[in-house]
Amino acid sequence: MPHIDFKNNLPGIRGAVAYRPETGKSLYDLAQVLLRGPSPLTEAERELIAAYVSHRNDCMFCMNSHAAAARCLYGEDKKLVDEVLADMQHAGVSDKMKALLNIAGKVQIQGKEVTPEDIAAAKTFGADDREIHDTVLIAASFSMFNRYVDGLACLTPTEPEVYEEMGKRMANGYVPPPSPKGE
Amino acid sequence: MPHIDFKNNLPGIRGAVAYRPETGKSLYDLAQVLLRGPSPLTEAERELIAAYVSHRNDCMFCMNSHAAAARCLYGEDKKLVDEVLADMQHAGVSDKMKALLNIAGKVQIQGKEVTPEDIAAAKTFGADDREIHDTVLIAASFSMFNRYVDGLACLTPTEPEVYEEMGKRMANGYVPPPSPKGE
Repeated sequence: MPHIDFKNNLPGIRGAVAYRPETGKSLYDLAQVLLRGPSPLTEAERELIAAYVSHRNDCMFCMNSHAAAARCLYGEDKKLVDEVLADMQHAGVSDKMKALLNIAGKVQIQGKEVTPEDIAAAKTFGADDREIHDTVLIAASFSMFNRYVDGLACLTPTEPEVYEEMGKRMANGYVPPPSPKGE
Repeated sequence: MPHIDFKNNLPGIRGAVAYRPETGKSLYDLAQVLLRGPSPLTEAERELIAAYVSHRNDCMFCMNSHAAAARCLYGEDKKLVDEVLADMQHAGVSDKMKALLNIAGKVQIQGKEVTPEDIAAAKTFGADDREIHDTVLIAASFSMFNRYVDGLACLTPTEPEVYEEMGKRMANGYVPPPSPKGE
Protein backbone atom coordinates (compact mmCIF):
# COMPACT_ATOMS: atom_id res chain seq x y z
CA MET A 1 0.00 0.00 0.00
CA PRO A 2 1.39 3.45 -0.84
CA HIS A 3 2.67 5.55 2.08
CA ILE A 4 0.17 8.32 1.22
CA ASP A 5 -3.39 8.27 -0.20
CA PHE A 6 -3.05 8.85 -3.96
CA LYS A 7 -6.85 8.66 -4.34
CA ASN A 8 -6.31 6.31 -7.28
CA ASN A 9 -5.20 2.70 -7.84
CA LEU A 10 -2.80 3.29 -10.70
CA PRO A 11 0.41 1.24 -10.61
CA GLY A 12 3.91 2.58 -10.04
CA ILE A 13 4.82 6.14 -10.88
CA ARG A 14 1.44 6.66 -12.57
CA GLY A 15 -0.27 6.67 -9.17
CA ALA A 16 2.01 9.44 -7.86
CA VAL A 17 1.80 11.43 -11.10
CA ALA A 18 -2.03 11.36 -11.14
CA TYR A 19 -1.96 12.53 -7.49
CA ARG A 20 0.32 15.48 -8.28
CA PRO A 21 -0.07 16.19 -12.02
CA GLU A 22 1.86 19.49 -12.00
CA THR A 23 5.17 17.83 -11.16
CA GLY A 24 4.06 14.70 -13.05
CA LYS A 25 3.96 16.63 -16.31
CA SER A 26 7.59 17.72 -15.89
CA LEU A 27 8.64 14.15 -15.03
CA TYR A 28 6.93 12.72 -18.12
CA ASP A 29 8.32 15.49 -20.33
CA LEU A 30 11.80 14.59 -19.11
CA ALA A 31 11.27 10.87 -19.79
CA GLN A 32 9.92 11.61 -23.26
CA VAL A 33 12.74 13.94 -24.39
CA LEU A 34 15.49 11.86 -22.78
CA LEU A 35 14.30 8.38 -23.82
CA ARG A 36 12.40 9.14 -27.05
CA GLY A 37 13.83 12.44 -28.32
CA PRO A 38 16.88 12.81 -30.61
CA SER A 39 19.99 11.03 -29.28
CA PRO A 40 22.93 9.11 -30.77
CA LEU A 41 21.80 6.23 -28.52
CA THR A 42 18.90 4.13 -29.86
CA GLU A 43 15.64 4.06 -27.91
CA ALA A 44 16.38 0.41 -27.08
CA GLU A 45 19.83 1.30 -25.68
CA ARG A 46 18.36 4.11 -23.58
CA GLU A 47 15.67 1.83 -22.13
CA LEU A 48 18.36 -0.75 -21.39
CA ILE A 49 20.35 1.82 -19.38
CA ALA A 50 17.13 2.76 -17.53
CA ALA A 51 16.38 -0.90 -16.71
CA TYR A 52 20.00 -1.56 -15.66
CA VAL A 53 20.04 1.38 -13.22
CA SER A 54 16.59 0.46 -11.85
CA HIS A 55 17.82 -3.11 -11.35
CA ARG A 56 20.84 -1.84 -9.40
CA ASN A 57 18.49 0.34 -7.31
CA ASP A 58 16.28 -2.70 -6.68
CA CYS A 59 13.21 -0.80 -7.94
CA MET A 60 11.02 -3.65 -9.17
CA PHE A 61 8.39 -1.47 -10.85
CA CYS A 62 10.86 0.60 -12.91
CA MET A 63 13.11 -2.39 -13.63
CA ASN A 64 10.29 -4.60 -14.90
CA SER A 65 8.56 -1.89 -16.91
CA HIS A 66 11.69 -0.46 -18.57
CA ALA A 67 13.08 -3.97 -19.21
CA ALA A 68 9.77 -4.74 -20.96
CA ALA A 69 10.05 -1.55 -23.03
CA ALA A 70 13.67 -2.40 -23.90
CA ARG A 71 12.72 -5.96 -24.97
CA CYS A 72 9.97 -4.53 -27.15
CA LEU A 73 12.38 -2.05 -28.79
CA TYR A 74 15.24 -4.59 -29.21
CA GLY A 75 12.85 -6.95 -31.05
CA GLU A 76 14.79 -10.03 -32.20
CA ASP A 77 17.71 -9.10 -29.94
CA LYS A 78 15.57 -8.88 -26.81
CA LYS A 79 17.62 -11.52 -24.99
CA LEU A 80 20.35 -8.86 -24.62
CA VAL A 81 18.18 -7.15 -22.01
CA ASP A 82 18.06 -10.20 -19.76
CA GLU A 83 21.75 -10.87 -20.34
CA VAL A 84 22.65 -7.36 -19.16
CA LEU A 85 20.41 -7.62 -16.10
CA ALA A 86 21.91 -11.02 -15.20
CA ASP A 87 25.60 -10.24 -15.82
CA MET A 88 26.42 -7.02 -17.68
CA GLN A 89 30.13 -7.73 -18.24
CA HIS A 90 29.38 -11.04 -20.00
CA ALA A 91 26.31 -9.88 -21.96
CA GLY A 92 26.28 -9.90 -25.77
CA VAL A 93 26.19 -6.08 -26.08
CA SER A 94 29.04 -4.11 -27.68
CA ASP A 95 32.15 -3.04 -25.78
CA LYS A 96 30.97 0.55 -26.20
CA MET A 97 27.64 -0.29 -24.58
CA LYS A 98 29.42 -2.08 -21.73
CA ALA A 99 31.60 0.99 -21.15
CA LEU A 100 28.49 3.21 -21.08
CA LEU A 101 26.69 0.81 -18.74
CA ASN A 102 29.77 0.89 -16.51
CA ILE A 103 29.44 4.69 -16.33
CA ALA A 104 25.70 4.36 -15.62
CA GLY A 105 26.50 1.95 -12.78
CA LYS A 106 28.98 4.42 -11.29
CA VAL A 107 26.40 7.24 -11.48
CA GLN A 108 23.90 4.95 -9.73
CA ILE A 109 26.30 4.73 -6.78
CA GLN A 110 27.19 8.44 -6.77
CA GLY A 111 28.21 11.05 -9.36
CA LYS A 112 31.78 11.37 -8.11
CA GLU A 113 32.37 7.62 -8.71
CA VAL A 114 32.75 8.33 -12.45
CA THR A 115 36.49 8.67 -13.17
CA PRO A 116 38.39 10.13 -16.14
CA GLU A 117 39.43 6.51 -16.81
CA ASP A 118 35.78 5.43 -17.14
CA ILE A 119 35.22 8.23 -19.65
CA ALA A 120 38.44 7.42 -21.55
CA ALA A 121 37.43 3.74 -21.77
CA ALA A 122 34.06 4.66 -23.29
CA LYS A 123 35.77 6.95 -25.81
CA THR A 124 38.27 4.21 -26.74
CA PHE A 125 35.29 2.08 -27.79
CA GLY A 126 33.84 4.92 -29.85
CA ALA A 127 31.46 6.71 -27.47
CA ASP A 128 31.13 10.44 -28.12
CA ASP A 129 30.43 13.28 -25.69
CA ARG A 130 26.74 13.28 -26.41
CA GLU A 131 26.39 9.53 -25.76
CA ILE A 132 28.26 9.94 -22.47
CA HIS A 133 26.05 12.91 -21.54
CA ASP A 134 22.83 11.03 -22.24
CA THR A 135 24.06 7.94 -20.37
CA VAL A 136 24.87 10.02 -17.27
CA LEU A 137 21.53 11.84 -17.37
CA ILE A 138 19.52 8.62 -17.88
CA ALA A 139 21.34 7.01 -14.93
CA ALA A 140 20.84 10.14 -12.82
CA SER A 141 17.16 10.47 -13.73
CA PHE A 142 16.43 6.84 -12.86
CA SER A 143 18.16 7.43 -9.53
CA MET A 144 15.27 9.90 -9.14
CA PHE A 145 12.40 7.88 -10.64
CA ASN A 146 13.38 4.80 -8.60
CA ARG A 147 13.44 6.82 -5.35
CA TYR A 148 10.15 8.55 -6.17
CA VAL A 149 8.40 5.20 -6.76
CA ASP A 150 9.89 3.31 -3.80
CA GLY A 151 10.06 6.31 -1.43
CA LEU A 152 6.25 6.56 -1.66
CA ALA A 153 5.80 2.75 -1.80
CA CYS A 154 3.87 3.00 -5.09
CA LEU A 155 1.79 -0.01 -6.12
CA THR A 156 4.02 -2.62 -7.74
CA PRO A 157 2.23 -5.30 -9.79
CA THR A 158 3.81 -8.75 -9.73
CA GLU A 159 2.36 -10.26 -12.93
CA PRO A 160 4.83 -10.39 -15.85
CA GLU A 161 2.04 -9.89 -18.39
CA VAL A 162 1.14 -6.52 -16.81
CA TYR A 163 4.68 -5.31 -17.49
CA GLU A 164 4.65 -6.72 -21.01
CA GLU A 165 1.59 -4.59 -21.83
CA MET A 166 3.19 -1.61 -20.10
CA GLY A 167 6.39 -2.05 -22.12
CA LYS A 168 4.45 -1.97 -25.39
CA ARG A 169 2.74 1.27 -24.38
CA MET A 170 6.00 2.83 -23.17
CA ALA A 171 7.76 1.91 -26.42
CA ASN A 172 5.35 4.33 -28.11
CA GLY A 173 6.22 7.21 -25.79
CA TYR A 174 5.57 8.69 -22.36
CA VAL A 175 2.16 10.26 -21.77
CA PRO A 176 1.10 11.07 -18.19
CA PRO A 177 -2.14 9.50 -16.91
CA PRO A 178 -5.14 11.84 -16.73
CA SER A 179 -5.38 13.51 -13.33
CA PRO A 180 -8.42 12.73 -11.15
CA LYS A 181 -9.70 16.25 -11.81
CA GLY A 182 -9.46 15.66 -15.56
CA GLU A 183 -6.92 18.47 -15.85
CA MET B 1 37.41 20.13 -15.79
CA PRO B 2 34.16 18.55 -16.98
CA HIS B 3 34.36 14.96 -18.30
CA ILE B 4 32.99 16.11 -21.70
CA ASP B 5 33.38 19.32 -23.70
CA PHE B 6 30.32 21.46 -22.92
CA LYS B 7 31.61 24.18 -25.30
CA ASN B 8 30.88 26.72 -22.57
CA ASN B 9 32.34 27.75 -19.20
CA LEU B 10 29.10 27.98 -17.23
CA PRO B 11 29.25 26.68 -13.65
CA GLY B 12 27.49 23.58 -12.33
CA ILE B 13 24.33 22.27 -13.94
CA ARG B 14 24.13 25.36 -16.17
CA GLY B 15 27.08 24.10 -18.22
CA ALA B 16 25.39 20.74 -18.88
CA VAL B 17 22.01 22.36 -19.57
CA ALA B 18 23.44 24.80 -22.11
CA TYR B 19 25.20 21.84 -23.81
CA ARG B 20 21.95 19.84 -24.06
CA PRO B 21 19.09 22.39 -23.87
CA GLU B 22 16.30 19.94 -24.82
CA THR B 23 16.70 17.91 -21.63
CA GLY B 24 17.78 21.05 -19.78
CA LYS B 25 14.38 22.65 -20.33
CA SER B 26 12.62 19.68 -18.69
CA LEU B 27 15.05 19.75 -15.77
CA TYR B 28 14.49 23.47 -15.16
CA ASP B 29 10.71 23.09 -15.55
CA LEU B 30 10.80 20.40 -12.87
CA ALA B 31 12.88 22.58 -10.51
CA GLN B 32 10.54 25.52 -11.06
CA VAL B 33 7.26 23.67 -10.43
CA LEU B 34 8.63 21.61 -7.54
CA LEU B 35 10.56 24.36 -5.71
CA ARG B 36 8.57 27.48 -6.70
CA GLY B 37 5.11 26.21 -7.67
CA PRO B 38 2.17 25.74 -5.26
CA SER B 39 3.02 23.55 -2.25
CA PRO B 40 2.12 23.45 1.44
CA LEU B 41 5.90 23.68 2.07
CA THR B 42 7.38 27.18 1.88
CA GLU B 43 9.98 27.91 -0.80
CA ALA B 44 12.56 28.23 2.00
CA GLU B 45 11.66 24.79 3.39
CA ARG B 46 11.88 23.23 -0.08
CA GLU B 47 15.31 24.77 -0.72
CA LEU B 48 16.43 23.54 2.71
CA ILE B 49 15.44 19.96 1.79
CA ALA B 50 17.33 20.35 -1.53
CA ALA B 51 20.44 21.62 0.26
CA TYR B 52 20.23 18.88 2.91
CA VAL B 53 20.04 16.09 0.31
CA SER B 54 22.84 17.67 -1.76
CA HIS B 55 24.96 17.87 1.39
CA ARG B 56 24.37 14.18 2.09
CA ASN B 57 25.30 13.42 -1.54
CA ASP B 58 28.48 15.50 -1.12
CA CYS B 59 27.57 17.58 -4.20
CA MET B 60 29.33 20.85 -3.44
CA PHE B 61 27.79 22.84 -6.30
CA CYS B 62 24.18 21.93 -5.49
CA MET B 63 24.71 22.12 -1.73
CA ASN B 64 26.30 25.57 -1.83
CA SER B 65 23.87 27.03 -4.36
CA HIS B 66 20.66 25.68 -2.77
CA ALA B 67 21.90 26.54 0.74
CA ALA B 68 22.44 30.10 -0.54
CA ALA B 69 18.92 30.16 -2.02
CA ALA B 70 17.50 28.80 1.26
CA ARG B 71 19.36 31.45 3.33
CA CYS B 72 18.01 34.13 1.03
CA LEU B 73 14.42 32.83 1.40
CA TYR B 74 14.66 32.28 5.19
CA GLY B 75 15.79 35.90 5.64
CA GLU B 76 16.20 36.63 9.37
CA ASP B 77 16.07 32.89 10.15
CA LYS B 78 18.86 32.01 7.75
CA LYS B 79 21.00 30.47 10.50
CA LEU B 80 18.56 27.51 10.43
CA VAL B 81 20.09 26.44 7.11
CA ASP B 82 23.58 26.11 8.55
CA GLU B 83 22.22 24.45 11.69
CA VAL B 84 20.49 21.76 9.59
CA LEU B 85 23.59 21.17 7.46
CA ALA B 86 25.77 20.89 10.58
CA ASP B 87 23.47 18.69 12.71
CA MET B 88 19.88 18.26 11.55
CA GLN B 89 18.54 16.60 14.71
CA HIS B 90 19.71 19.49 16.91
CA ALA B 91 18.80 22.33 14.52
CA GLY B 92 16.22 24.97 15.47
CA VAL B 93 13.64 23.83 12.88
CA SER B 94 10.23 22.40 13.90
CA ASP B 95 9.70 18.74 14.81
CA LYS B 96 7.60 18.43 11.63
CA MET B 97 10.47 19.73 9.53
CA LYS B 98 12.89 17.32 11.24
CA ALA B 99 10.54 14.42 10.47
CA LEU B 100 10.36 15.50 6.82
CA LEU B 101 14.15 15.91 6.63
CA ASN B 102 14.46 12.42 8.11
CA ILE B 103 12.31 11.10 5.24
CA ALA B 104 14.41 13.07 2.73
CA GLY B 105 17.57 11.53 4.20
CA LYS B 106 16.09 8.04 3.83
CA VAL B 107 15.17 8.74 0.20
CA GLN B 108 18.74 9.97 -0.38
CA ILE B 109 19.99 6.52 0.66
CA GLN B 110 17.33 4.59 -1.28
CA GLY B 111 13.54 4.74 -1.72
CA LYS B 112 12.86 1.54 0.20
CA GLU B 113 14.59 2.96 3.30
CA VAL B 114 11.44 5.01 4.03
CA THR B 115 9.33 3.05 6.52
CA PRO B 116 5.68 3.35 7.59
CA GLU B 117 7.09 4.50 10.96
CA ASP B 118 8.92 7.42 9.28
CA ILE B 119 5.65 8.45 7.61
CA ALA B 120 3.66 8.03 10.85
CA ALA B 121 6.19 10.17 12.74
CA ALA B 122 5.84 12.98 10.18
CA LYS B 123 2.04 12.80 10.43
CA THR B 124 2.20 12.89 14.25
CA PHE B 125 3.95 16.25 13.95
CA GLY B 126 1.29 17.54 11.55
CA ALA B 127 2.68 16.73 8.09
CA ASP B 128 0.01 15.99 5.47
CA ASP B 129 0.17 13.72 2.42
CA ARG B 130 1.06 16.53 0.07
CA GLU B 131 3.98 17.68 2.25
CA ILE B 132 5.27 14.10 2.41
CA HIS B 133 4.89 13.75 -1.38
CA ASP B 134 6.78 16.95 -2.10
CA THR B 135 9.52 16.04 0.38
CA VAL B 136 10.04 12.64 -1.28
CA LEU B 137 10.09 14.12 -4.78
CA ILE B 138 12.50 16.93 -3.82
CA ALA B 139 14.84 14.35 -2.24
CA ALA B 140 14.51 12.06 -5.27
CA SER B 141 15.06 14.88 -7.77
CA PHE B 142 18.19 16.08 -5.98
CA SER B 143 19.46 12.50 -6.06
CA MET B 144 19.27 13.14 -9.83
CA PHE B 145 20.56 16.71 -10.02
CA ASN B 146 23.54 15.84 -7.77
CA ARG B 147 24.46 12.82 -9.92
CA TYR B 148 24.06 14.81 -13.15
CA VAL B 149 26.40 17.55 -11.90
CA ASP B 150 29.05 15.30 -10.34
CA GLY B 151 28.74 12.47 -12.88
CA LEU B 152 29.84 14.91 -15.59
CA ALA B 153 32.29 16.71 -13.26
CA CYS B 154 30.61 20.08 -13.91
CA LEU B 155 32.58 23.20 -13.02
CA THR B 156 32.28 23.88 -9.29
CA PRO B 157 33.23 27.39 -8.16
CA THR B 158 34.86 27.66 -4.73
CA GLU B 159 34.18 31.32 -3.87
CA PRO B 160 31.32 31.81 -1.34
CA GLU B 161 30.33 35.13 -2.97
CA VAL B 162 29.63 33.34 -6.28
CA TYR B 163 27.05 31.14 -4.51
CA GLU B 164 25.57 34.09 -2.67
CA GLU B 165 24.82 35.79 -5.99
CA MET B 166 23.52 32.50 -7.40
CA GLY B 167 21.22 32.01 -4.40
CA LYS B 168 19.68 35.47 -4.93
CA ARG B 169 18.97 34.64 -8.58
CA MET B 170 17.60 31.19 -7.75
CA ALA B 171 15.29 32.65 -5.07
CA ASN B 172 13.53 34.42 -7.95
CA GLY B 173 12.99 31.22 -9.93
CA TYR B 174 14.63 28.72 -12.26
CA VAL B 175 15.33 29.88 -15.80
CA PRO B 176 17.66 27.79 -17.99
CA PRO B 177 20.73 29.53 -19.45
CA PRO B 178 20.50 30.45 -23.13
CA SER B 179 21.85 27.63 -25.31
CA PRO B 180 24.96 28.32 -27.42
CA LYS B 181 22.76 28.34 -30.52
CA GLY B 182 20.53 30.98 -28.94
CA GLU B 183 17.58 28.58 -29.04
